[in-house]
Amino acid sequence: MGLSGCMAPHLNTSAATRASSKSSTAEKLLVAAGELMIARNSPDVSLSEIAQQSGVNAALVKYHFGNKDGLLLALLARDAATEMTHLDYLMAQPITPTAKLKLHIAGIIKAYHRSPYMNRLIHYLLHESSDKAADEVSKFFIRPLLDFHRRLLAEGVAAGEFREIDPVLFYTSLIGACDHLFSGRTAMARATGVGPVTDDVCRDYVAHVEAMTLGGMLKTPAGRKA
Amino acid sequence: MGLSGCMAPHLNTSAATRASSKSSTAEKLLVAAGELMIARNSPDVSLSEIAQQSGVNAALVKYHFGNKDGLLLALLARDAATEMTHLDYLMAQPITPTAKLKLHIAGIIKAYHRSPYMNRLIHYLLHESSDKAADEVSKFFIRPLLDFHRRLLAEGVAAGEFREIDPVLFYTSLIGACDHLFSGRTAMARATGVGPVTDDVCRDYVAHVEAMTLGGMLKTPAGRKA
Repeated sequence: MGLSGCMAPHLNTSAATRASSKSSTAEKLLVAAGELMIARNSPDVSLSEIAQQSGVNAALVKYHFGNKDGLLLALLARDAATEMTHLDYLMAQPITPTAKLKLHIAGIIKAYHRSPYMNRLIHYLLHESSDKAADEVSKFFIRPLLDFHRRLLAEGVAAGEFREIDPVLFYTSLIGACDHLFSGRTAMARATGVGPVTDDVCRDYVAHVEAMTLGGMLKTPAGRKA
Repeated sequence: MGLSGCMAPHLNTSAATRASSKSSTAEKLLVAAGELMIARNSPDVSLSEIAQQSGVNAALVKYHFGNKDGLLLALLARDAATEMTHLDYLMAQPITPTAKLKLHIAGIIKAYHRSPYMNRLIHYLLHESSDKAADEVSKFFIRPLLDFHRRLLAEGVAAGEFREIDPVLFYTSLIGACDHLFSGRTAMARATGVGPVTDDVCRDYVAHVEAMTLGGMLKTPAGRKA
């Protein structure tokens, strides 16, 4: 089952749609999968565990999502949908490219923060599941982001706000920085006693990535606003 | 077996030491493990496969490294040793903090590039192996880097070159950006036809991360050197 097929209801994120789908079997299964991943701090959960946790018959998992990859893709799509579906909306706003980029950075980091398993889920689907699942993640998650960065950078250069930057390199460094707050935190905690990613840490990191991306770390005589 | 124990010969990176250890059984096993990981594009190789590939008796793997985690830790330490052992040396050089940071960024990205399996190996040891192995990676890889960033940022602020930046946030965004060129490339290739990480891509990315880290993306009227 393709991502676009199984995810269509979730990509339409109006409050009404969300309220009605909450009661559906598919939604129950997604909620159970998310809870299990949080409890276990790993995307390594089985279909039968998800069925048991949700009180749904295992056969219905197959009916709704095809297989485990289908369910995990639907979970990722649900959690990333707000940010991904709003890229075009954000691009069309009557604000500066710099302001759009700030909203985008905050949106990406907050999407990771809302779903503590999201970064592990992306890594799992890209590297440890089927080629088909990896293709779906690429299509749903990576291609639209890269396309958004390409358009935003071009607009910023045209507006005289940004210098010329290669969009692929820009995507790589920005998404890598956002992802690493979540993928690297456990390891940092081991090494250095750094605490977990709280709301405060998340807010500080949004401000840090914004400031670094826009203005870097150098002090300049021109009195740059950091 | 601790990392410091099994890695002592490799951390001493004089040419003589390297030449003599090349012929040793331990070195043969590390070479075989690295080759298998490159061939398979995954750190998921078994001890018996490594023994077979190297022509070394499986019992000697146990003798030299204790277990598979010990061997993988030794491999990571060997490949990251040049960069990690030179942090103090770099810190002591009579050059500006900005120049030190540039050398550091290039060094980190090139270390990843020299060992195509390094980022996967780090992720594997941190998230999919024993707690003990994850602790060793944290101690060997993360703590010294974070400590180096802390000292370098303080020196840069004292010299009037850098603005005040939280070292933990700085570590997170910089290492995340460096890592993602390698951890994210396969997925980007699927989505967008972006090619592999060649020497040219690596060089371009070093320049990109340097420029972004130091000066960000904004054009300023002061005619900043990007």
